[in-house]
Amino acid sequence: MAAARARQAQLVKPPGSLGRLEDLAVWLAGVTGSERPTLHARVVVAAADHGVAAQGVSAYPQAVTAQMLATFASGRGAVSTLAGAVGAELVLVDAGVAGGSQGIDCVRLGIGPSRDLSLEPALTVGEVALAVDAGRDLAARAAADGITVLAGGEMGIANTTPATCLAAVLTGRAVADLVGAGTGLDDAGIARKRAVCERALELHADAARGPLHALRRVGGGEHGLGYVCDGLIATAAAAVAAGIEPDLRPRLLAGHRSPEPAHGVLLDHLGLEPVLDLGLRLGEGSGATAALAVLRLALATHDGMATFAEAGVSGSSR
Amino acid sequence: MAAARARQAQLVKPPGSLGRLEDLAVWLAGVTGSERPTLHARVVVAAADHGVAAQGVSAYPQAVTAQMLATFASGRGAVSTLAGAVGAELVLVDAGVAGGSQGIDCVRLGIGPSRDLSLEPALTVGEVALAVDAGRDLAARAAADGITVLAGGEMGIANTTPATCLAAVLTGRAVADLVGAGTGLDDAGIARKRAVCERALELHADAARGPLHALRRVGGGEHGLGYVCDGLIATAAAAVAAGIEPDLRPRLLAGHRSPEPAHGVLLDHLGLEPVLDLGLRLGEGSGATAALAVLRLALATHDGMATFAEAGVSGSSR
Repeated sequence: MAAARARQAQLVKPPGSLGRLEDLAVWLAGVTGSERPTLHARVVVAAADHGVAAQGVSAYPQAVTAQMLATFASGRGAVSTLAGAVGAELVLVDAGVAGGSQGIDCVRLGIGPSRDLSLEPALTVGEVALAVDAGRDLAARAAADGITVLAGGEMGIANTTPATCLAAVLTGRAVADLVGAGTGLDDAGIARKRAVCERALELHADAARGPLHALRRVGGGEHGLGYVCDGLIATAAAAVAAGIEPDLRPRLLAGHRSPEPAHGVLLDHLGLEPVLDLGLRLGEGSGATAALAVLRLALATHDGMATFAEAGVSGSSR
Repeated sequence: MAAARARQAQLVKPPGSLGRLEDLAVWLAGVTGSERPTLHARVVVAAADHGVAAQGVSAYPQAVTAQMLATFASGRGAVSTLAGAVGAELVLVDAGVAGGSQGIDCVRLGIGPSRDLSLEPALTVGEVALAVDAGRDLAARAAADGITVLAGGEMGIANTTPATCLAAVLTGRAVADLVGAGTGLDDAGIARKRAVCERALELHADAARGPLHALRRVGGGEHGLGYVCDGLIATAAAAVAAGIEPDLRPRLLAGHRSPEPAHGVLLDHLGLEPVLDLGLRLGEGSGATAALAVLRLALATHDGMATFAEAGVSGSSR
């Protein structure tokens, strides 16, 4: 990182004038251990269903999770088009899709949908271990494949509810303050979701201490994965991961800021400043993938610009 | 635009969930008159020198303007690398470079550096006419070449000083509140720049009414060009252009938010919300060009995503 920062100081521009683009190049230098890093990006989208969907906390029926996983695989989901535009690979994961993932090219964790967190723990101890191990395996396989940046996304009807509960447990904030509209709930729906979240926190508050217990109690299948943060759900996963492995923190990048209240609280909790603020509230890894375009610009300048000496340009008169 | 908005409503995502990406696709549909527009982008960087540099308002010597124009042409300036990364053409303009532009592949307006605006009008009536006409010609030529988006950038030692004065005249704000650090002035430099701007406004305030008079009195050679806004200088040019041609306003996009105080005031004046906020303060069109990457993502989703019907995905239960 020091070498990359020194290079930035020599490039033919006023020091610091490329702002966040300079920071992003230096961040990737640190992540990869290379003064002039390359971006080989993979987007991992984990899909899972959630028993809490039965409480009417989403504007969409549960069947949509499996349908969207198939759409991603067809290349015509939002994240598929974004990954194509930024030159990133797309890997899909069935982390507990209710309808299954027959015929879809994806990694299968072999676990089913989570249980209704407003009534009982969402996951078993075995499911948590399986999901976390699968996340580690996916990250290790990406590293072995020469991937330098992993972006995490998710799909799952009702999954802002567990992610909001996770945010409340991990940050200590009142869950009622963190509930948002998700994919587009009306006021009555938001009130219902708030009541469900409050009931869940009451049920699990004492038992949900620590990131893994929180994940088991109020999380979901796709929360075992995470590395580069997308919106609320992927950032909740990253907060769990950073709770287990504090050394992960400097390797995290916040792709964007979502309008979900719990997302802002999690970004503050992790000390992350998002790259983009475009009002995205889709999930799927769309914000993380869009941010890869900015990371690519950071590297284009970091690698392609001349130094003052190379260009024969006069320096500052100070 | 209505057709593009209708298409967005059918794409396989909750309505509005791609936020600004949806707005950008609809904006380009309006600009091009096409429901599914394509992005053919050209970045026009106008370089000019300013007599006010003699007042010590920049951290860099005037020779840097010509040196940087040559660096852009070599492909290794920041804007050259960014344009390459987003797939945009780069056109350079000598709009009054003190050292001239011999041997550099660029459009030459045939005017010299502006005069010191703290002592006399910066440009002659003839120079203003020439610069504005050249801007119109460049835009017309781009349209004839099939370009759908023109991004405007600039290079010119001391050019935040005229742009800040222009912002004060066009918006009616006190110039002392608008002065920033430019490429990196220290506190003494900022105080000096503030005094120069105040002297200039006192000298020209009565005569600088209306955008063209303002341009002549306190502007500079590169201010005759502008279409998609970069930072302070290019946005000041856009504000002049929108003052002359109010119909231009809906065709303007703000690429990014710069830390210069006068830039925020101009964005408010034009009613523009920037796409990126990355702390860029380089100029050159770097922020406008970076925003083209986001525009490309907007079109990738707009054009590549399936509709609910095409994907066979269930709609909202509401």
